[in-house]
Amino acid sequence: MSAPANFNGQRPVIDPNDAAMLLIDHQSGLFQTVRDMNVPELRANVTTLAKVATLAKMPVITTASVPQGPNGPLIDEIHRYAAHAKYVARKGQINAWDNPDFVAAVEATGRKTLIIAGTITSVCLAFPSISAVHAGYKVFAVIDASGTYSKMAQEITLARIVQAGVVPMDTAAVCSEIQQTWHREDALQFAEAYSAVFPAYQLLIESYQKAQDVLKNNEQLDSERA
Amino acid sequence: MSAPANFNGQRPVIDPNDAAMLLIDHQSGLFQTVRDMNVPELRANVTTLAKVATLAKMPVITTASVPQGPNGPLIDEIHRYAAHAKYVARKGQINAWDNPDFVAAVEATGRKTLIIAGTITSVCLAFPSISAVHAGYKVFAVIDASGTYSKMAQEITLARIVQAGVVPMDTAAVCSEIQQTWHREDALQFAEAYSAVFPAYQLLIESYQKAQDVLKNNEQLDSERA
Amino acid sequence: MSAPANFNGQRPVIDPNDAAMLLIDHQSGLFQTVRDMNVPELRANVTTLAKVATLAKMPVITTASVPQGPNGPLIDEIHRYAAHAKYVARKGQINAWDNPDFVAAVEATGRKTLIIAGTITSVCLAFPSISAVHAGYKVFAVIDASGTYSKMAQEITLARIVQAGVVPMDTAAVCSEIQQTWHREDALQFAEAYSAVFPAYQLLIESYQKAQDVLKNNEQLDSERA
Amino acid sequence: MSAPANFNGQRPVIDPNDAAMLLIDHQSGLFQTVRDMNVPELRANVTTLAKVATLAKMPVITTASVPQGPNGPLIDEIHRYAAHAKYVARKGQINAWDNPDFVAAVEATGRKTLIIAGTITSVCLAFPSISAVHAGYKVFAVIDASGTYSKMAQEITLARIVQAGVVPMDTAAVCSEIQQTWHREDALQFAEAYSAVFPAYQLLIESYQKAQDVLKNNEQLDSERA
Amino acid sequence: MSAPANFNGQRPVIDPNDAAMLLIDHQSGLFQTVRDMNVPELRANVTTLAKVATLAKMPVITTASVPQGPNGPLIDEIHRYAAHAKYVARKGQINAWDNPDFVAAVEATGRKTLIIAGTITSVCLAFPSISAVHAGYKVFAVIDASGTYSKMAQEITLARIVQAGVVPMDTAAVCSEIQQTWHREDALQFAEAYSAVFPAYQLLIESYQKAQDVLKNNEQLDSERA
Amino acid sequence: MSAPANFNGQRPVIDPNDAAMLLIDHQSGLFQTVRDMNVPELRANVTTLAKVATLAKMPVITTASVPQGPNGPLIDEIHRYAAHAKYVARKGQINAWDNPDFVAAVEATGRKTLIIAGTITSVCLAFPSISAVHAGYKVFAVIDASGTYSKMAQEITLARIVQAGVVPMDTAAVCSEIQQTWHREDALQFAEAYSAVFPAYQLLIESYQKAQDVLKNNEQLDSERA
Amino acid sequence: MSAPANFNGQRPVIDPNDAAMLLIDHQSGLFQTVRDMNVPELRANVTTLAKVATLAKMPVITTASVPQGPNGPLIDEIHRYAAHAKYVARKGQINAWDNPDFVAAVEATGRKTLIIAGTITSVCLAFPSISAVHAGYKVFAVIDASGTYSKMAQEITLARIVQAGVVPMDTAAVCSEIQQTWHREDALQFAEAYSAVFPAYQLLIESYQKAQDVLKNNEQLDSERA
Amino acid sequence: MSAPANFNGQRPVIDPNDAAMLLIDHQSGLFQTVRDMNVPELRANVTTLAKVATLAKMPVITTASVPQGPNGPLIDEIHRYAAHAKYVARKGQINAWDNPDFVAAVEATGRKTLIIAGTITSVCLAFPSISAVHAGYKVFAVIDASGTYSKMAQEITLARIVQAGVVPMDTAAVCSEIQQTWHREDALQFAEAYSAVFPAYQLLIESYQKAQDVLKNNEQLDSERA
Repeated sequence: MSAPANFNGQRPVIDPNDAAMLLIDHQSGLFQTVRDMNVPELRANVTTLAKVATLAKMPVITTASVPQGPNGPLIDEIHRYAAHAKYVARKGQINAWDNPDFVAAVEATGRKTLIIAGTITSVCLAFPSISAVHAGYKVFAVIDASGTYSKMAQEITLARIVQAGVVPMDTAAVCSEIQQTWHREDALQFAEAYSAVFPAYQLLIESYQKAQDVLKNNEQLDSERA
Repeated sequence: MSAPANFNGQRPVIDPNDAAMLLIDHQSGLFQTVRDMNVPELRANVTTLAKVATLAKMPVITTASVPQGPNGPLIDEIHRYAAHAKYVARKGQINAWDNPDFVAAVEATGRKTLIIAGTITSVCLAFPSISAVHAGYKVFAVIDASGTYSKMAQEITLARIVQAGVVPMDTAAVCSEIQQTWHREDALQFAEAYSAVFPAYQLLIESYQKAQDVLKNNEQLDSERA
Repeated sequence: MSAPANFNGQRPVIDPNDAAMLLIDHQSGLFQTVRDMNVPELRANVTTLAKVATLAKMPVITTASVPQGPNGPLIDEIHRYAAHAKYVARKGQINAWDNPDFVAAVEATGRKTLIIAGTITSVCLAFPSISAVHAGYKVFAVIDASGTYSKMAQEITLARIVQAGVVPMDTAAVCSEIQQTWHREDALQFAEAYSAVFPAYQLLIESYQKAQDVLKNNEQLDSERA
Repeated sequence: MSAPANFNGQRPVIDPNDAAMLLIDHQSGLFQTVRDMNVPELRANVTTLAKVATLAKMPVITTASVPQGPNGPLIDEIHRYAAHAKYVARKGQINAWDNPDFVAAVEATGRKTLIIAGTITSVCLAFPSISAVHAGYKVFAVIDASGTYSKMAQEITLARIVQAGVVPMDTAAVCSEIQQTWHREDALQFAEAYSAVFPAYQLLIESYQKAQDVLKNNEQLDSERA
Repeated sequence: MSAPANFNGQRPVIDPNDAAMLLIDHQSGLFQTVRDMNVPELRANVTTLAKVATLAKMPVITTASVPQGPNGPLIDEIHRYAAHAKYVARKGQINAWDNPDFVAAVEATGRKTLIIAGTITSVCLAFPSISAVHAGYKVFAVIDASGTYSKMAQEITLARIVQAGVVPMDTAAVCSEIQQTWHREDALQFAEAYSAVFPAYQLLIESYQKAQDVLKNNEQLDSERA
Repeated sequence: MSAPANFNGQRPVIDPNDAAMLLIDHQSGLFQTVRDMNVPELRANVTTLAKVATLAKMPVITTASVPQGPNGPLIDEIHRYAAHAKYVARKGQINAWDNPDFVAAVEATGRKTLIIAGTITSVCLAFPSISAVHAGYKVFAVIDASGTYSKMAQEITLARIVQAGVVPMDTAAVCSEIQQTWHREDALQFAEAYSAVFPAYQLLIESYQKAQDVLKNNEQLDSERA
Repeated sequence: MSAPANFNGQRPVIDPNDAAMLLIDHQSGLFQTVRDMNVPELRANVTTLAKVATLAKMPVITTASVPQGPNGPLIDEIHRYAAHAKYVARKGQINAWDNPDFVAAVEATGRKTLIIAGTITSVCLAFPSISAVHAGYKVFAVIDASGTYSKMAQEITLARIVQAGVVPMDTAAVCSEIQQTWHREDALQFAEAYSAVFPAYQLLIESYQKAQDVLKNNEQLDSERA
Repeated sequence: MSAPANFNGQRPVIDPNDAAMLLIDHQSGLFQTVRDMNVPELRANVTTLAKVATLAKMPVITTASVPQGPNGPLIDEIHRYAAHAKYVARKGQINAWDNPDFVAAVEATGRKTLIIAGTITSVCLAFPSISAVHAGYKVFAVIDASGTYSKMAQEITLARIVQAGVVPMDTAAVCSEIQQTWHREDALQFAEAYSAVFPAYQLLIESYQKAQDVLKNNEQLDSERA
């Protein structure tokens, strides 16, 4: 493979109307083992995916690896911002795709395009992604909404899943590919969601508004006040 | 100097009852020029200082460098979380200490210990810190609640202010030195404030509570559910 | 794919006579969100592409993402150094290729080889590149004349577009592949353009000329002056 | 190739019942030349592979490059934790696969899937991996249980072996793919093996147990002791 | 100050017969917040200090910050390898020196030289170190047997404690300054302790012994075996 | 020392009316040996110092180390932007301060405060700075308008000159301390000079002006054009 | 492609009897522009390739880009250690493969496997490598015996040439694949050549010999001398 | 202290006529434990010091830590390039200054200024440097001709020795301060010695000479040859 798998001549991009989002094992304990990226950034990226799936009315499926043990609870932002998400409990399987309930939940969405993120990347993202490609799905893996124990492990996993036909994505690309255009009623909500991924974007908006407010309000410069 | 200045034999630590906090030029535009640290972390650290000053009922003084121009507005978290903060408009002076209103506002607090953060570190933090030492204050400079244009500029500034008798601090140390003990009524609020500085700490708390809840609620393991 | 797409047995290199250059969303605001590379270096690289396209009489098409909003204006070097560039206004589409005017402008050039750079790389470069491959073009993506919000996002995007059949390039390679030989009348102008990409090259030229001037002018050593 | 080689339509994942593990040239002297990763981490990863192979009753073959010379002895953890491993002495061949005894030992296992790690990665891992693919094996190369003389050499080797059809893996992924499920009698032993790869995981377990012990034992807080 | 405090003309080095070791807040939870150094290395360094104090029959005092809460338990290596260590429970004080029992325990040792390590460095190491200098002790702070939330926080803390008269040390220097000479009966035990701090040293010893064993045992080269 | 030397109770800041600027050995060849910072950034910083000295009508003295040899010519920006600068030829002395003509030129300015930058930092900046302190001058060394062969060499030099009583500065701090206030006729020229040091600042200004122009010109959004 | 090109079912490894080595544009001036790796390491790697080609009696072809201009002379180690190398002067062509004399020299060797290194990697290595693949050669590109202006440019080039069917290699892998076995008369000369690539290997040999000499010579320990 | 110790009003620079050089424990085995800098660079720096001491006819004293054991032999470049160096065997003392023979050898030189380098920096450099300051010597510690087990250990040691009154230096600064002027008969030999410290300098010289040779020899451009 090493080409995007299962696209059959279509553009290898996300079709939001055919996509479901799978958020796997984003748990407080596992997050403590992440060393390939800044954890607050990872947490913000996962949260943004949840928000954007909700805006796009996209099915979301979550699962966790024994959240009653040291791996810890799912971070609560996911179900907070994607209230429609369906949680599937696993019976010990490390690869979520080895759990029949999980696969059934995916099938129940009727979607053939999967957007997957999972912590740790090497395992919780990679295994289901490769399995789903093998099962005939178009798979997009969101590397920076996943986290693993070393930068090297992340690089190895990226190479492995690309070789297997998975399409690698970053969080901003996923959101933009789902949004498609600023000419939609919920454009502002998308912009708000991006601020978490791009904190610099929040600064841009603040500066822009102030620059225009100064004009609109005829605001006096601090340095010219009496 | 190169020793903590103006302590006259006292321990060179913050006395929260003698301290005022000065937050200088933390503006949306200037934040875009910061390259010595992660901007979201910087923003979180400044916000935490504001919260902790409020908890400790410590006077806070803010000022900005022409917020009507490209430097942009003060980030609004500061006055949101330190509603009692007093804003001083400057008349173009780069060094806030060169502005008589600013010095007057400091003197009006009656405090002789100053906790200062400012963006950009090289200028907005360093100049007032050195000036305040010269004016006889005990000065603590919060390097990681300030930001500047390169790691090298940050390192140079650290060396310069230490040489001048300023005590360098990080945000967590400032908060802890103000808090002093967990045996206080507002301990939980301090803990909440720390989560922003130490996102890993938020994960710890989440994991800890889940571990105890599992026991308290006799929660069944996912892997053992029927 | 994962091989250069649409070359049909030709060498996967730029044919300057068949190429058009697309410079997408290089805007002052978006540049402030770039963290995978040094922004001045990015700006210099984009400028160099514009200069080299002009030297090679290559069509250039530009577009921007709502330059009236926080994304800010196109950096003016592009149209300054490629005065013949055609600007296409978009109607909100995030993927420039989704805008019919943009595609029409590309088609109007009659070229089947596209050299694309865009900020942010993950979106503004990746989406049109993948779309253009799908539309049958030979596509060269200039990764270091594009910028994105993290090194990881850049690495993910590189993997994605290579998988899709896009040929990744760096700015110096693009310029050299367009230039082909130093035996051309405008060789000096190419050399001048390279100095921006390779500032070390400017130093080489200065040192070389001084070394020869010392001989030609019989210049006395400073250390031997009376 | 550049796709996983020799899978013939199967999922490109490790089948533990068809796999043998080859640990090549992990020697004290060669470890001193490793600069692409932390050597203690490398040593822990190799040790973990040996432990997991033993748990999974998987054949292990070791070999060394003239351990009587400057390359030094095999690290003793390998045969300590995989007592069933078979050591093959080579006759000077750099590529272990060029040694007929080594190939015979592999064939004798009857397995067609190989999990290979070797120091230095560029040579001792890469050469046998590429050779084994050519000989018809499914090959998984464990990059972070191998080490080489520079990060760049590691990146080059990763690209080379992926191009040749080898599947790249990290240590944690290998262990999890062998384990498959937590519903097995030796799950605790797997968990113990992981602690070496993920030292952060050991901290998680310690914290988790303490959190539950405090409840179970009604442990008084330090801060509340008389 | 900014000179080693309280030495009164003596060499500012550790006198092992006058020293006590204080190991503060090395807890599983707090270790998860450490980002200025590799946690396994930190853990090894703390363990080595405990072993060396035991070899040198040096008093050790430990304390923890509410180990019943999210900060987690003391890592058990400390009391395992320094069985004579005395644990002091605190009553909520963040600065251990603010706890009268802790100061009393220090005074009870009769020692006037303190070797201090603490996690997090910014707080748990810095505050007691500065306090102890103020109380007249000679203080050595072991920066790399402490850990904090960012490299910047570590650099700031280093500057602060040096300014206050504390002598900064690394773990290897502390061990060597305590050991003084290889002409002592327990030299081998010191060597063993160092292997944890310098994993490269373990490799050296293994390689050295093999090189000599080959000669002593007339070991045949692998490559020359029949 | 290790305190700012020769200030005699004054604030250790630059008094622009008492200061002269010494720019030493900024040569094309030597710049090629610089590895502690980005050379284009170094070149921009030196150029900015020259511009600011001109704005402030501050004496500038330059010198070079055998510019007829491999060290190469002085970069021409210095005399271009500080046309009033006086060049002193040395007679082979490595330490410019060992050249009597150079010291005489400094004395001729009548200034007692020196702002010094030099490449390479370890030698060309450090030696004259230490010498000038010894000769009774107040000395400010501009570390990031100097360059040397490794980051470690830069860090060592910073420590050495601080220990000797030199005040370390970064380029932005020097410019701001010379400018003092935005209430001066040449404020715009200072702003222009800063853009080279802070390229992000240029982006801020461009974005700010566009934001206001959109309002002033009632500019239609691209996305709303017919 | 993205698979090793032109191997037709053979193992994608170097056959030393079919290989020629092309060393392109390794010039003093161009080396000053290299920023993706340490230049002394690059220089040592190129030198090692020249030595190994000589040991293997492999044809070597060199060429330079206008060595009379700022690019500077070929480093003289190449022809010093590969005295049999043939130098081909180019007529201004940037891509050496565009020069008919160069291609003729390659053809004259009768070899169909090419080992290519070139500075700068993005251009001088990449262009001829891609051209040679297209001309039907098996091509191995030695990335770390080439250098370019940024790490990002190196990563982009690696991706591009792999996509085009070139096999990427590091210097140590090339040498080992040429050597094949330690059972050859010139094994010691290979070992000597490796010391330059692996300076740590030189240390190993020195330590090993000393360890054995101590035994052989009954050398008294320093610490036991009278 | 924290000021250069024992200078009594003299410039804190090296007086080559009063200086002796102490090179301590630069051994093949210990070099394998170095991680704060590139070992080949370290080895080159130590070699350069030996060469420069010889040029300056400066006494050199060497010693090693049990070179018959795992620490390995002194690197032989030291006595090769400083044939006059005196080796002192120690009796197990870790701090060379604790060995009476070593101190006697230092005293026998009659010099009061010491230039010290030692591996590992934390111990072998730091301990004798602090001891020598205490014994009344002016001490210059060459940090980058020493090496230790982590960058953090190097930074801690730098802070400690500066605090103790030792003057920190880098290798290039030491050489230049010894050389003083290019107006000396052995200037060329100094230049040759620098090439090892500054490999970029060797490139400069090569390029410079070629640039002049082209003119002197009327060399035809490659591109203009028939």
